[in-house]
Amino acid sequence: MSEEKKIPYKIYLEENEMPQSWYNVRADMKNKPAPLLNPGTLQPMTAEELGGVFCEELVRQELDNETPYIEIPQEIRDFYKMYRPSPLVRAYCLEEKLQTPAKIYYKFEGNNTSGSHKLNSAIAQAYYAKNQGLKGVTTETGAGQWGTALSMACSYLGLDCKVYMVKVSYEQKPFRREVMRTYGASVVPSPSETTQVGRKILAEHPGTTGSLGCAISEAVEVAVSNPGYRYVLGSVLNQVLLHQSVIGLETKAALDKYNIKPDMIIGCAGGGSNLGGLISPFMGEKLRGEADYQIIAVEPQSCPSFTRGVYAYDFCDTGMVCPLAKMYTLGCDFIPAPNHAGGLRYHGMSPVLSQLYADGLMEARAVPQTAVFEAAEQFARVEGILPAPESSHAIKVAIDEAMKCKETGEEKTIVFGLTGTGYFDMVAYEKFHDGKMDDYIPTDEELARFRAKLPKVG
Amino acid sequence: MSEEKKIPYKIYLEENEMPQSWYNVRADMKNKPAPLLNPGTLQPMTAEELGGVFCEELVRQELDNETPYIEIPQEIRDFYKMYRPSPLVRAYCLEEKLQTPAKIYYKFEGNNTSGSHKLNSAIAQAYYAKNQGLKGVTTETGAGQWGTALSMACSYLGLDCKVYMVKVSYEQKPFRREVMRTYGASVVPSPSETTQVGRKILAEHPGTTGSLGCAISEAVEVAVSNPGYRYVLGSVLNQVLLHQSVIGLETKAALDKYNIKPDMIIGCAGGGSNLGGLISPFMGEKLRGEADYQIIAVEPQSCPSFTRGVYAYDFCDTGMVCPLAKMYTLGCDFIPAPNHAGGLRYHGMSPVLSQLYADGLMEARAVPQTAVFEAAEQFARVEGILPAPESSHAIKVAIDEAMKCKETGEEKTIVFGLTGTGYFDMVAYEKFHDGKMDDYIPTDEELARFRAKLPKVG
Repeated sequence: MSEEKKIPYKIYLEENEMPQSWYNVRADMKNKPAPLLNPGTLQPMTAEELGGVFCEELVRQELDNETPYIEIPQEIRDFYKMYRPSPLVRAYCLEEKLQTPAKIYYKFEGNNTSGSHKLNSAIAQAYYAKNQGLKGVTTETGAGQWGTALSMACSYLGLDCKVYMVKVSYEQKPFRREVMRTYGASVVPSPSETTQVGRKILAEHPGTTGSLGCAISEAVEVAVSNPGYRYVLGSVLNQVLLHQSVIGLETKAALDKYNIKPDMIIGCAGGGSNLGGLISPFMGEKLRGEADYQIIAVEPQSCPSFTRGVYAYDFCDTGMVCPLAKMYTLGCDFIPAPNHAGGLRYHGMSPVLSQLYADGLMEARAVPQTAVFEAAEQFARVEGILPAPESSHAIKVAIDEAMKCKETGEEKTIVFGLTGTGYFDMVAYEKFHDGKMDDYIPTDEELARFRAKLPKVG
Repeated sequence: MSEEKKIPYKIYLEENEMPQSWYNVRADMKNKPAPLLNPGTLQPMTAEELGGVFCEELVRQELDNETPYIEIPQEIRDFYKMYRPSPLVRAYCLEEKLQTPAKIYYKFEGNNTSGSHKLNSAIAQAYYAKNQGLKGVTTETGAGQWGTALSMACSYLGLDCKVYMVKVSYEQKPFRREVMRTYGASVVPSPSETTQVGRKILAEHPGTTGSLGCAISEAVEVAVSNPGYRYVLGSVLNQVLLHQSVIGLETKAALDKYNIKPDMIIGCAGGGSNLGGLISPFMGEKLRGEADYQIIAVEPQSCPSFTRGVYAYDFCDTGMVCPLAKMYTLGCDFIPAPNHAGGLRYHGMSPVLSQLYADGLMEARAVPQTAVFEAAEQFARVEGILPAPESSHAIKVAIDEAMKCKETGEEKTIVFGLTGTGYFDMVAYEKFHDGKMDDYIPTDEELARFRAKLPKVG
């Protein structure tokens, strides 16, 4: 009890304690993530090939499996200071409400206008694009956090920004578009008539509500067909996990400051950007044999890539114009039920996390949507933060684990990632309040159908 | 330049540096604010009379013009720790963008789910209601921040919460209702058919878009006619300014920590809760002759109580069921143009601030709406925070003052209050982006018509 009293509700690092380098967990992985493959030749993508789609420096970061620490350029560090460090919060009020002996911490990434951790990589990617003398970037966005983050970063640096937004989110989140417009971005609901691949998808699946996979295809097409533009991606890629390691590095520094050793680290997982960033330095210790942690990825039952997908090479996008990645995947045609709220709708999973999962270094759990919203509301009422539906997946499992501690009497220390706020998710909250939300679970037959279409590689 | 480098982008106090008492600026005022009057007898309201509407402890605080420091109960201080201290931000990016020699700081109160400073008083008022054994509270809300804040506080303490929301805001901010519902509150658009006064106002002004004055009348009626309920108010009252002094006390502590002496303090003013709280300790120094500061209240041109109102006794509400307060007022029937976005729609002004303004201790400026949104967008793009329209009034004048410094070369230190975020104001931002926003300015004739109806007192 006296030990507890010393720990403040919120741990903020000083500016001079903020990370000066990103940590590249690949450097410590014995089994490296499998390389991206050229969709034509099925050979590993070269730096030159990747350079047609991505900025040069980002290609270097994407391919670098060896360098453990990569310095964060000063301009990015200055931008980080605008909204970071994010607080590591001791969830005293939640613990009290649950009457659990567990000690719960969450790293809260929602205190910036994009509303999530996505800004950490957006500013990095925009910075390197600017540095390379580009005019602008294109991207996709699902729930809208990534698009907003990228708009903010581009506006700050004076880059043009074209966002393809998954149609279902575009419709469910009418005000997201206005935020992006405030930051000067153009936003198109996807699939759209503005690209070849969009027109093709619309012809084949009229009335589709879209998917990240479709939106990626459109954004890539626009980037490669417009001089001075490159494509940027908010998740899945190795470079994104690298940038997001700032979350885990800050978390670890804050814990170390108070001599706290977590037993378990929990994060929601769509493409893996938050989870990968949060766990990076902890996974590094685990890989180097310096410490052990229970690491849990939480995904929606409606889009269960870890728990019901296969570990195989697949296209990153629905239009099959992107490289292939080896990852846990449901098949690049998989489109989750439109009822499913917010992000975590991607068919695949970060190759880094996929390899770590395949190697038994982390676990995964799939949770139903209504239980996630119940956890979200419970959390909001005691911790005062209205969580994003995505983040609430992690809340759900953190609460489950804290309740197990209540049964067993264990005083485990649980750290979870609270990736963002739900201010733009009130349509989903309204459905939940009105009892109109249901729990879609794909059948085995459905999943098998998509799996059958996986490309045959190696 | 070297001095600047030492100051971080964000100054956070440690938990043990957070205020343990509120500061009551009335104790240092030579001319005390005029007492509230009983609308029947026109005599000063007694504690007993006020006790029918407000909780006992809050009545004591309302009437206490002598005690300079009032201890913050431990339970409220614990709740404050959930979302406070709020950061004092050095606006390096804005300074850079404006190329001004001025040093700009803002106290950012938006990092909590209510999205504004309102939570500071909501938790205090809910705490005292709970302590008195009440079942619930009623209130009005304009832009929705106060209603959300009160919902959060009531949910935390297990109190029932009934919110009357100004109809124009209820319609402009469809998701505010869902946030309040997440926290278990019931929300009614005002004027409504649920109260006598609401039915009367609707009969006299069919199609009215409502006003804070109407909503107050309805909430008071429900409180006094339901046993176990009291009314709580988010602004104007002395007690609210007392609770909000936590903003100013934290600001001053953060400035003192880095030995910064502001030249000017700027805040938006609707009923005065933020401005009164922000300036309290600085005004205290000014009143005691220990320091001097330029203090500027910023109000919308469409609701200009300081700059075009009169200092007189008036009703606090449209239904004339509440006590009379001596304040700068436009007349309790005044309803701003529905086009005007967000809060700052109240016809009167805090009696404390009114007295200070009458005594020449502070200034006021009225600004047009489109200029406010221009400042908001400029700020968002460089500082990364999407500001509430209310807060953006202060941004507008802070930028104006920084630009004056650019002309004169003066290195003034400007502190302004950034009361909250604009996530629920995207309808207004959309109007602005689409060029559909205009600048309503009431004519002299209009104002004279409302002024003629002021009650004749003393």
